Amino acid sequence: MGSRQVLTVWVVPILLATSFAASRSSESAQETAIEQVLHMQQDAWNRHDLTRFMSGYWNSPELTFFSGTKVALGWDAALERYRQAYQAEGKEMGHLEFSDLRIEPLGADAAFVRGAWRLTMSDGKTPHGLFTLVFRKFADGWNIVHDHTSGE
Amino acid sequence: MGSRQVLTVWVVPILLATSFAASRSSESAQETAIEQVLHMQQDAWNRHDLTRFMSGYWNSPELTFFSGTKVALGWDAALERYRQAYQAEGKEMGHLEFSDLRIEPLGADAAFVRGAWRLTMSDGKTPHGLFTLVFRKFADGWNIVHDHTSGE
Repeated sequence: MGSRQVLTVWVVPILLATSFAASRSSESAQETAIEQVLHMQQDAWNRHDLTRFMSGYWNSPELTFFSGTKVALGWDAALERYRQAYQAEGKEMGHLEFSDLRIEPLGADAAFVRGAWRLTMSDGKTPHGLFTLVFRKFADGWNIVHDHTSGE
Repeated sequence: MGSRQVLTVWVVPILLATSFAASRSSESAQETAIEQVLHMQQDAWNRHDLTRFMSGYWNSPELTFFSGTKVALGWDAALERYRQAYQAEGKEMGHLEFSDLRIEPLGADAAFVRGAWRLTMSDGKTPHGLFTLVFRKFADGWNIVHDHTSGE
């Protein structure tokens, strides 16, 4: 077996396997980092700390938040939407649970998340629905750049 | 100026610029390919060709379609949802228009699209709403792997 054959038979598969393992491990690190953002958001919501909850979103005028037929454009508009829906007179934040989370990496610096949300209100009502989140990786970590939420 | 300096001062910026231009051009090719899928879908819908419209979606049991609080899992379930909503007794497909399309590349093989949809029905009603699509690039082109639609 010549040295070129050794290269082909052993080194190339090992390099491919190493590269695959590195890519899997990087995907798994992405998923862990994104899971942490989602857990932080759920915990912050349940402490009724909307400012901390909002820190999961990209603090940019380019953040987009779709809900039903409405677009909130920018971080300030997204916060205002949450305030009006959950902190205005007669409204409450309730207790939030995420479920059925599926984090799917899209390259090294992006991922999207599919999931379900459910609120339990003090009167026992449980508004619920689905969400799609697009995450991007920034210098200071992963943030939601787009949120599409629907429900009843 | 030594040869190393020449490399730094001229060659590196040129390589960076070339790489940036290639990346921009690849992003623009992505956007064009995805735009074509969306135009194909709009045209197919308006010819009431649901099979052709559905060819924009990943033909896989892993395709997901979120609408309101409902999940359709897999291509067959997504088609069935469209059939029940737009082709069942007393239903119609109407005339579809997409607007406010924003295609955002996420790496070489993925992108997401934000947009608005509007149907015009024969009785003049105009159901409308928003959508978020996640596209992935496959060997045979770009397909929607996840659709989140909301509206009224």
